[in-house]
Amino acid sequence: MPELRQNFFTKEWVIIATERAKRPEDLATHRPAQTVPSFVETCPFCPGNENKTPPEVMRYPANASEPWAVRVIPNKFAALSSEAQPTRSLQHLRRRIDGFGFHEVIIDSPDHSSAMALLPDAQVAKILGVFKDRYNSLSTDQRINHVTIFKNHGVDAGASLQHPHSQLIATPVIPSQVRHRLHEALRHYDDAGECMFCHMVEREVEDQTRIVLKSELFVAMEVFASATPFATHIFPLRHMASFGEITAAEILNLARMLRTLLAKLYVGLENPDLNFTIRSGPSDYVGARHFHWYVSVIPRLTRVAGFELGSGMFINTVLPESAAEFLRNIKVDKAVGTGASAKL
Amino acid sequence: MPELRQNFFTKEWVIIATERAKRPEDLATHRPAQTVPSFVETCPFCPGNENKTPPEVMRYPANASEPWAVRVIPNKFAALSSEAQPTRSLQHLRRRIDGFGFHEVIIDSPDHSSAMALLPDAQVAKILGVFKDRYNSLSTDQRINHVTIFKNHGVDAGASLQHPHSQLIATPVIPSQVRHRLHEALRHYDDAGECMFCHMVEREVEDQTRIVLKSELFVAMEVFASATPFATHIFPLRHMASFGEITAAEILNLARMLRTLLAKLYVGLENPDLNFTIRSGPSDYVGARHFHWYVSVIPRLTRVAGFELGSGMFINTVLPESAAEFLRNIKVDKAVGTGASAKL
Repeated sequence: MPELRQNFFTKEWVIIATERAKRPEDLATHRPAQTVPSFVETCPFCPGNENKTPPEVMRYPANASEPWAVRVIPNKFAALSSEAQPTRSLQHLRRRIDGFGFHEVIIDSPDHSSAMALLPDAQVAKILGVFKDRYNSLSTDQRINHVTIFKNHGVDAGASLQHPHSQLIATPVIPSQVRHRLHEALRHYDDAGECMFCHMVEREVEDQTRIVLKSELFVAMEVFASATPFATHIFPLRHMASFGEITAAEILNLARMLRTLLAKLYVGLENPDLNFTIRSGPSDYVGARHFHWYVSVIPRLTRVAGFELGSGMFINTVLPESAAEFLRNIKVDKAVGTGASAKL
Repeated sequence: MPELRQNFFTKEWVIIATERAKRPEDLATHRPAQTVPSFVETCPFCPGNENKTPPEVMRYPANASEPWAVRVIPNKFAALSSEAQPTRSLQHLRRRIDGFGFHEVIIDSPDHSSAMALLPDAQVAKILGVFKDRYNSLSTDQRINHVTIFKNHGVDAGASLQHPHSQLIATPVIPSQVRHRLHEALRHYDDAGECMFCHMVEREVEDQTRIVLKSELFVAMEVFASATPFATHIFPLRHMASFGEITAAEILNLARMLRTLLAKLYVGLENPDLNFTIRSGPSDYVGARHFHWYVSVIPRLTRVAGFELGSGMFINTVLPESAAEFLRNIKVDKAVGTGASAKL
């Protein structure tokens, strides 16, 4: 029997279409293993080609005499311009803002071949540290209302360059999805006097069926009302509204969990295209009691069709509980996370 | 300079990324012209294969001694089941409904080759008439709260069978997108004492720059804050909350405009994959003063990436005003709409 489930954070209904059900492994890409070279002469993100990108915003380590491990540059094809000012105008019903904002690329590693699933935990921690630095630095700009940090891995996930990289876009508005979650979170806080995310995480940990990974600081779980197969959330167990509040110890712990989750997806679904995004409260929500940041990992295994576009409801053919069990059982080879092999 | 624009109906911000701007014609598929046969022996939707589908829900004309022009069947791989009951349950925060609903396929024509862009206006009118019949019939079921009618054309738009068909899914809930538009519409009605859609349509007709087609009964326009290139709305000029209120004269007029718009996209962008959906108020909104139904046509020319998933904000690389001008200038051959040629 199919089932409708309501997303607790967004109140969106999802159809879990068990009649069309697929076993989790049916969604594996079956793409042939590919040997990706670790250096490509024409790649603007490979070491030695630093002059092919706009001047760097930051590098890690900062000391220019050492080779960089992570590098941040303005996106050459930026969606928003830091040269503009966020001037608003309203003509009849048409509301506009000049396209002010920041659009940056975070180069994950000098190694062209190393998808994040294959990086050492320590390298992932460096990337997350750079995310935090950029998040906090851009958040001090009074014209910025929100910073979205995300990764596109693979063509179906919108990546146009193969060299592993992440991106951020800082906007002069709070994007609608974030605004909507804030409303619902505030409403729950008003009703129940608690963070709805904290409450949900507690119940899910109790229930166990959708948990994929758990440490003393973070938990990774399949989403009860998941719109798409294998959508996975990683929540910090400590209440924090803004990603900018993450501590150094939490960064190390999250790096390990995120990398392990990505490796499980890499092995279990054979390197699927995927996105992840850090869903954080807006920059000025530090300390807010009703919101809670998390990481949302979304493998791109299915297509959005007319029903989804027309209704906003999604049809998901994989039971989140089956997806969780499948991911729990995937053994991630010890070689993964050492950066030793790009092939697995 | 890029620009942020706010969607008047949803309050969603969109980035119109003119720095990355593409000319409308750059988005054409350049796919080689394909000759599609008008009959395929193995196609379950082709005449003679009626026994390969579940028993039909309705046919047009109703008289079984005449060959059918449009045929409605239950979807063999239905996302929801008409056998279930919409029983609700709440366990901790997990809200569920048993998967009750209707999922039907409308076969647009006996002709395997005739994409809707190539059908005669009269055939499109028959299809729209069947949409109306099914919409009104399913709406009388007290367990149904909303009917979404949509088309998937092409693989990237989610179509799994080539034979031209549309679909509908009737749900026991009001989908989130619809609910959100209703809220905003009610808020505008409360503020201004008018339908926000009627108001917007009036201003757009005055402004002209985004209008593609206009008749005495309907107007087709590019969307001011369009999330994706060439997203086009067709609005009835008469105020109506529910698609079920459309008259016979309006059906004829809409058929002509929808078919002409699809033909312009077919010619101008070389048969792009696309979806359309009828955004109607819920079934019991007949007569509501604050909501207004419309058709949303969405060519699938771009991919959703991590930023869109993480923020709900879209980056659109085609200025809606350029898209409108481009579509206005596309000459639709007289042969289109006679069903004479599947090749154009």
